[in-house]
Amino acid sequence: MKSRLFTPGPTPVPEDVLLRLAAPLIHHRHPEFRALLERVQMNLRTVFQTREPVLTLTASGTGAMEACVVNLLSAGDTVITVNGGKFGKRWGEIASRYGVRVVECTIPWGDVVQPSQMEEVLRLHPGAKAVYLTQSETSTGAATDIRIMSEVIHTHSDALVCVDGISSIGAHELRFDAWGIDACITGSQKGLMIPPGLAFVALSAKARKAMEQASLPRFYFDLGVALAAAKKNDTPWTPAISLVAALDAALLHMIEEGMEEIWKRHRRLALGLRAGIEAMGLRLFSQKPSFSVTPVWIPESVSWQTLQSAFRSENGITVAGGQGEFAGRIFRIAHLGYYDDLDIIAVVAGLERALARCGFSVELGRGVSAAQRVLA
Amino acid sequence: MKSRLFTPGPTPVPEDVLLRLAAPLIHHRHPEFRALLERVQMNLRTVFQTREPVLTLTASGTGAMEACVVNLLSAGDTVITVNGGKFGKRWGEIASRYGVRVVECTIPWGDVVQPSQMEEVLRLHPGAKAVYLTQSETSTGAATDIRIMSEVIHTHSDALVCVDGISSIGAHELRFDAWGIDACITGSQKGLMIPPGLAFVALSAKARKAMEQASLPRFYFDLGVALAAAKKNDTPWTPAISLVAALDAALLHMIEEGMEEIWKRHRRLALGLRAGIEAMGLRLFSQKPSFSVTPVWIPESVSWQTLQSAFRSENGITVAGGQGEFAGRIFRIAHLGYYDDLDIIAVVAGLERALARCGFSVELGRGVSAAQRVLA
Repeated sequence: MKSRLFTPGPTPVPEDVLLRLAAPLIHHRHPEFRALLERVQMNLRTVFQTREPVLTLTASGTGAMEACVVNLLSAGDTVITVNGGKFGKRWGEIASRYGVRVVECTIPWGDVVQPSQMEEVLRLHPGAKAVYLTQSETSTGAATDIRIMSEVIHTHSDALVCVDGISSIGAHELRFDAWGIDACITGSQKGLMIPPGLAFVALSAKARKAMEQASLPRFYFDLGVALAAAKKNDTPWTPAISLVAALDAALLHMIEEGMEEIWKRHRRLALGLRAGIEAMGLRLFSQKPSFSVTPVWIPESVSWQTLQSAFRSENGITVAGGQGEFAGRIFRIAHLGYYDDLDIIAVVAGLERALARCGFSVELGRGVSAAQRVLA
Repeated sequence: MKSRLFTPGPTPVPEDVLLRLAAPLIHHRHPEFRALLERVQMNLRTVFQTREPVLTLTASGTGAMEACVVNLLSAGDTVITVNGGKFGKRWGEIASRYGVRVVECTIPWGDVVQPSQMEEVLRLHPGAKAVYLTQSETSTGAATDIRIMSEVIHTHSDALVCVDGISSIGAHELRFDAWGIDACITGSQKGLMIPPGLAFVALSAKARKAMEQASLPRFYFDLGVALAAAKKNDTPWTPAISLVAALDAALLHMIEEGMEEIWKRHRRLALGLRAGIEAMGLRLFSQKPSFSVTPVWIPESVSWQTLQSAFRSENGITVAGGQGEFAGRIFRIAHLGYYDDLDIIAVVAGLERALARCGFSVELGRGVSAAQRVLA
């Protein structure tokens, strides 16, 4: 059966990028690899919309999160995090593990933090060294307006603005320089359209200055040595060479399409999918849905196991389940990376069939028709 | 020009393994991936010669080194390291960074630590929590006898025996259980014959017990959560899926050949290469050379730049230069992983040609002939 991934990482990899993975390796100190890494570093700046350095780490996204904690802080520092889902919560878990005092803005899953709430927290904790945000909270699909939050933070404090862009970069508008972001990370298996194994960190001049004072222990994730190496188109440790080569190919696709066009496409795909889903009588989970992933309430009459099995075994489609307290209650369809209009039509069609298979009353063709009208 | 890698990581990847990298991704929570990871974890135990768990981390080898420090120790602990090269030194650098007291056995580069020297250090530091060793010191090619060192350590102390097997596992005999090793690591781009991006850690019951007391901070490299996930054929963070799939294919090759046969082959390749090198009138760098990599003194009349260029541009061969104080003074030929007798003949032939090109007096055919006799 033909297999289709609609998960928020890994996401589908373009066919020519897959073939790059199969090419014999170039040694990472060879001039050919340095030229490749130089091009990758340059194109990553376009993706992050920055003139600042963007570092390539061999790790999952969580490794890049840890790097943004241990390189910017010292034990006893206070930071502000937003816990409105699994990944926002993780910022606080990492910081606590290193002896950092964490002030958590807790919001219901699916919601986003409000500017007034952030202002209040900043007023109560004027010495906070950093605020850790999540642009697209993968576990809930909720999207935080980073431009506004960054403005609020800079207006009311001197804290560093650190953004998890893991499941948003390459889907959602993000302007590192223009929005005054100090540290922003992403992972390879999301909007960048390559397999997992690489993570990326952009750092502002202010963040690089903060690194000099930060005394938390670090070695593998020491961004000081990574910055020094990056200047010479090098990495401190052996990088995941084949993934960097694949990234080079994937970035060429992104540069060719253009960031504005990529953002527009993701918005269109998200709106088309949601029209299809709502036309079937299903309800969306988040009121502030991101353009990367759409979480949907599972109808009461249907179990997640049955739905997942109907997706997989009848239609070859893999979607993601709910996480945390929403495991079994929601499912998530990703549209992040290498997707086009017809992929959205296909997943809506698959969802109609899967629901029918589960005994949920659905008029076949109604969802695809609604999606088709919005997409076109 | 045909390209040939003789570097101690990355090493050549078998053709069918390269093709596995180009396969569309399986989601890491899909039953198909769990079955794959289960098989990988089982076959890794054979490679490490252990019944203990072997964890798969998405990182370079240095990440696995850090994991063996932060999971086993607390600030203020004392450990013993052996600094006889870049990588032995790194154990001490990592431990120091985390506030661990490091007692360093310093030996000349190219030498290995002697049992009597280790006994003496253990006597002076009876409370040492761990001893960190390097089986094949990649920077010098020197091989430490881990079986004997482990015996010495266990006889004289209660310290954990931690072994960097990054450039030895899959080339050198290593018996994790039989030799009483407590923690052992390797990387993917060495004897395991896949691209860089994964690292592995085997842990004894004693090491797992030590983890419960160890209070150094850790999150991404927290082996406690990795062990819990591994029991369910899972990983705590998104793994480098395509590399794990490639590893599955590479491990099948290793299991088919058999560990004893793999060790014999590497010994034969090393001895054949060395016969060829010495027949040309060159001198080996280490008196205790490993079977993974052979460092050679560069003749006085030749510069490393010229030699490297003659290797590369005339013969398509990439070898490694010297590191640290031996940069420019030695070069290193790796024979670790996917190599056979004829590859050794080829690199000896390439070396003869490169030397002739550099104006070094060499009788063409003398090296290959000597290598051929020893290999056959």
